[in-house]
Amino acid sequence: MPDLAPDRYVLVADIGGTNTRVALAEGVSILKETIRRFRNADHSGLEEVLTTYLADAGSGGGSGGGAVDCAGACIAVAGPVRDGAASLTNLDWSMDGALLARATRAERVAILNDLQAQGHALGQLGPGALRTILPGAPAKPDAARLVVGVGTGFNAAPVHVTPVTRIVPPAEAGHITLPVRSAADLALAEALGARHGFASVEDALSGRGVEAVYAFTSGGQRKTSDQIMEALEDGSDPAALETATTIVRLFGAVAGDLALQHLPFGGIALCGGMARAFAPHLEPLGFLKAFTDKGRFSEFLKGFPVQVIEDDYAALTGCAAYLASQG
Amino acid sequence: MPDLAPDRYVLVADIGGTNTRVALAEGVSILKETIRRFRNADHSGLEEVLTTYLADAGSGGGSGGGAVDCAGACIAVAGPVRDGAASLTNLDWSMDGALLARATRAERVAILNDLQAQGHALGQLGPGALRTILPGAPAKPDAARLVVGVGTGFNAAPVHVTPVTRIVPPAEAGHITLPVRSAADLALAEALGARHGFASVEDALSGRGVEAVYAFTSGGQRKTSDQIMEALEDGSDPAALETATTIVRLFGAVAGDLALQHLPFGGIALCGGMARAFAPHLEPLGFLKAFTDKGRFSEFLKGFPVQVIEDDYAALTGCAAYLASQG
Repeated sequence: MPDLAPDRYVLVADIGGTNTRVALAEGVSILKETIRRFRNADHSGLEEVLTTYLADAGSGGGSGGGAVDCAGACIAVAGPVRDGAASLTNLDWSMDGALLARATRAERVAILNDLQAQGHALGQLGPGALRTILPGAPAKPDAARLVVGVGTGFNAAPVHVTPVTRIVPPAEAGHITLPVRSAADLALAEALGARHGFASVEDALSGRGVEAVYAFTSGGQRKTSDQIMEALEDGSDPAALETATTIVRLFGAVAGDLALQHLPFGGIALCGGMARAFAPHLEPLGFLKAFTDKGRFSEFLKGFPVQVIEDDYAALTGCAAYLASQG
Repeated sequence: MPDLAPDRYVLVADIGGTNTRVALAEGVSILKETIRRFRNADHSGLEEVLTTYLADAGSGGGSGGGAVDCAGACIAVAGPVRDGAASLTNLDWSMDGALLARATRAERVAILNDLQAQGHALGQLGPGALRTILPGAPAKPDAARLVVGVGTGFNAAPVHVTPVTRIVPPAEAGHITLPVRSAADLALAEALGARHGFASVEDALSGRGVEAVYAFTSGGQRKTSDQIMEALEDGSDPAALETATTIVRLFGAVAGDLALQHLPFGGIALCGGMARAFAPHLEPLGFLKAFTDKGRFSEFLKGFPVQVIEDDYAALTGCAAYLASQG
């Protein structure tokens, strides 16, 4: 049971489309035993989740005690944040600073998107949390970094470190134009974009994107992304291999374009469930070839290290790191 | 003739592929009467240009006096900067901090790329320096901004303002994949990218890009970008109109993708010779339609103000502003 002294902990939460994970942190360290997962569908809103969490944490799961009184609260949301309020496409929860302050009694509150949180986590993750895919060239410690996330959706966040602060700006990078380099790419983009008249990066590089690319590639068959990954592993379905090859090539092309725009000489960190699922396939299926396939700038692109964030709780660490940096 | 008291002024310079412009500034104000233009081809290197400039400035163009001793020196270069050294594709000048310090005797030296300098200029430009194309939605004063430059080349620079600092990260945004949305786009991209097997944004959105798009559109005719703009103005050449329509559409598409990646709610500022030449044609030729043509995110994109920087000396102001912010 956590210490009930006021303001000893901060509350951090990672709010996805389906689940919300909540934990307490002391400084930048997540207290692993305090992590709890809530199904969003079982709750009326974020305030209910947080007050339930803090009351349970204060009582040690039993009777007695009171709610934990936090010094700070920071949430990471898998959706856009503007003017201190976040929204999720498939969830009508209200998420803003006033709600966070009310639910947690925290003096300092903050709302990040999930990729910003991943960006703030860089530098705080334990050994083994990052697996290298491309070593790149040596960089100065203050070199820019870039987080690229592929999961339910797609997004990116550059990390700029100065002597006085760390800036991780928000983005909606999943909604930019899907790169097209050939007639086959164009046919795929037209299929993926048929509904809205526009094929975005996220229409291919996301869980539902992988399923849509598979449906196109297989001539209309349907499989879930889990089934596609399974078929890829056991070699039972040529369309799964072709889908994965296309996804990896598009991922490389998009990551290369992002690298040219943010110049992350300090490294590109891939995160999210789909990025982790594809990690073992990136090299064999041609990620680096696609990443560096930029004409005169091909050599230049080999200078960027590429890694995968293996730590599934990095967004929580990022929330704690952000609060600590603002404190 | 400038005051010869040491450290009263800073030296600023804007180094393009053809010309270098040098001036003195006091604080963030460029002293207009001190601006001089040098043809790069007439000089052996930047050191010669700067020592010549400072000796002439000190002697008032005549005999007597000495070289001006500057407190700081900052140059903006139309090419990549890494680890404090800049390079230009078509010029073998050495440009680094040691050279700047030697030539100017300045205590503080800095090297930016030209778009970073434009970014640092925002907020320091006089009234009338920015012309509005799209009003966008009201934004907070600390909202991010974005500079997009189309001239000899293409590049972009986001501007992030925090309570303690202003960050304008470098980029190589001209070398990302040219967006392709149709079979006609694909044919154009294949023509533009034939030489390097890759069509970048800059292969269309630049002075030489406009000429290449014209050659493709007209079935192989050659015109300079000046001749194309003239033919567009006087309505004498349908291929010039078709070229301009394509350029404006691609510019809108690229600017929209950049907006989604940097979320510049404080505005997008277009700069550079080609951007200024196309400014009167942006609205009639469909820039806004292309800028907002992003499927589900079309409404979202209407929130970003778009302006054109009319001040041809903005990069010099940006150099002075950068030095002042570091001082």
